[in-house]
Amino acid sequence: MKDLAYASPALVRGLIRKDEFSGQTSGICRGYAQGNLVILPKHLAYDFLLFTQRNPKPCPVLEVADTGCRELKLTAAGSDIATDIPKYRVYEKGELTGEFSDIVSLWREDFVSFILGCSFTFESALMDEGIEVRHIQAGCNVPMYITNMECSPAGIFSGPTVVSMRPVPVDKVVKAVQITSRYPRVHGAPVHIGNPALIGIRNINKPDFGDAVEIKENEVPVFWACGVTPQAVAMKTKPEIMITHSPGHMFITDVKNHELGE
Amino acid sequence: MKDLAYASPALVRGLIRKDEFSGQTSGICRGYAQGNLVILPKHLAYDFLLFTQRNPKPCPVLEVADTGCRELKLTAAGSDIATDIPKYRVYEKGELTGEFSDIVSLWREDFVSFILGCSFTFESALMDEGIEVRHIQAGCNVPMYITNMECSPAGIFSGPTVVSMRPVPVDKVVKAVQITSRYPRVHGAPVHIGNPALIGIRNINKPDFGDAVEIKENEVPVFWACGVTPQAVAMKTKPEIMITHSPGHMFITDVKNHELGE
Repeated sequence: MKDLAYASPALVRGLIRKDEFSGQTSGICRGYAQGNLVILPKHLAYDFLLFTQRNPKPCPVLEVADTGCRELKLTAAGSDIATDIPKYRVYEKGELTGEFSDIVSLWREDFVSFILGCSFTFESALMDEGIEVRHIQAGCNVPMYITNMECSPAGIFSGPTVVSMRPVPVDKVVKAVQITSRYPRVHGAPVHIGNPALIGIRNINKPDFGDAVEIKENEVPVFWACGVTPQAVAMKTKPEIMITHSPGHMFITDVKNHELGE
Repeated sequence: MKDLAYASPALVRGLIRKDEFSGQTSGICRGYAQGNLVILPKHLAYDFLLFTQRNPKPCPVLEVADTGCRELKLTAAGSDIATDIPKYRVYEKGELTGEFSDIVSLWREDFVSFILGCSFTFESALMDEGIEVRHIQAGCNVPMYITNMECSPAGIFSGPTVVSMRPVPVDKVVKAVQITSRYPRVHGAPVHIGNPALIGIRNINKPDFGDAVEIKENEVPVFWACGVTPQAVAMKTKPEIMITHSPGHMFITDVKNHELGE
């Protein structure tokens, strides 16, 4: 793992393609942006693209591939979206029906792939400015929660916003807002600070996705919109099929993190 | 006109609807954002929405209406997009076939309306910071040019970027870049500064849309991506039908300019 921290995205995508790497991608290819994946058939793609336009905080689009095309030409030349993610999830009519290391046998010519920005980019900016990120220290996945904040619906798609949570020392909360505000293409500023109950989170120790992390006494839980939102939307709106990444197992692009900052 | 400078957007949309106002909208409803219009049939809407995603500088989307819906619910509640613009243009297979004061008789249930951000928003920020805007001083329309900068294609849509030009005193060019960079949802930072020939403009005194303006000796021409780009794209890609605003005759939204700044 350690040797992949400074590897090139093309090299790591190649390892993943050959099943030589299948873990979470946090901390890999430092300096490069990673992305969330949503694949839908073309007849649902307009509604979903409109959904991303209306909900840019959970769903900031980095690239939409041409219909049927497995390469992300703009953000990862030479990539193959059917093989280059360590773990995929398949949702059929809203049910998670399986996790796979590739989706070659499931691929259809009418599939459209959406790559959405991922908070790994702003986590690296937070750490650069001296704000530690708990789940990275703990070596686990970020805790994610389904909230009571409804997305703006579009066509068949509607559902709750999923958020990720990072505990921030109380004297660094403003700084964390300022830093992440500069990254609207990877979820941007927090959507909530301080009171999980107000956004419908009953038990902060039981995330809906990822792993629970400790919140220390001098820390405040800070919540950002999360690219897992489409998975909660799929569970609610039950499209025929939606293929996504498995949380934490992201698509590694050739885009530098700093290219996404403002 | 003068009395409309501080009128509410809903009031002015009402006057336009009743054909009691039919002029250009520059300087009207100060403080409120105006928008460019593109209407396309649903079967072309996915390609165009993807085109806007790939070309956010000329085509920053403020709102996409639901299919067949004439109200822009999010940016102008109570509006009617078929009547609330002073002058419409209809392009059929790439040909401008007419200008109309409303499009009620042309409306179809499969029409999708796109509202794109307009540079009037950043012009007001430029003036607030002491940078005069020549075409506003001169009381004419901004000069617009078809360039050699190709947009990123999407589906059937491709074509050149259209830019607007404002002469800026040489010692204020940096400031103009800084100010407009804060407004990515209304075209953002300039796409070119200084040499029109390099972006394929042969004669700065003969704009493709709008009116020519004087460039004084101590001034540099500064170019921003322009929401008239879809009209140049329609001329090139010849969709069955595209309805737009007539340049300078915009859709006045209820969104405050400052809501679009960062």
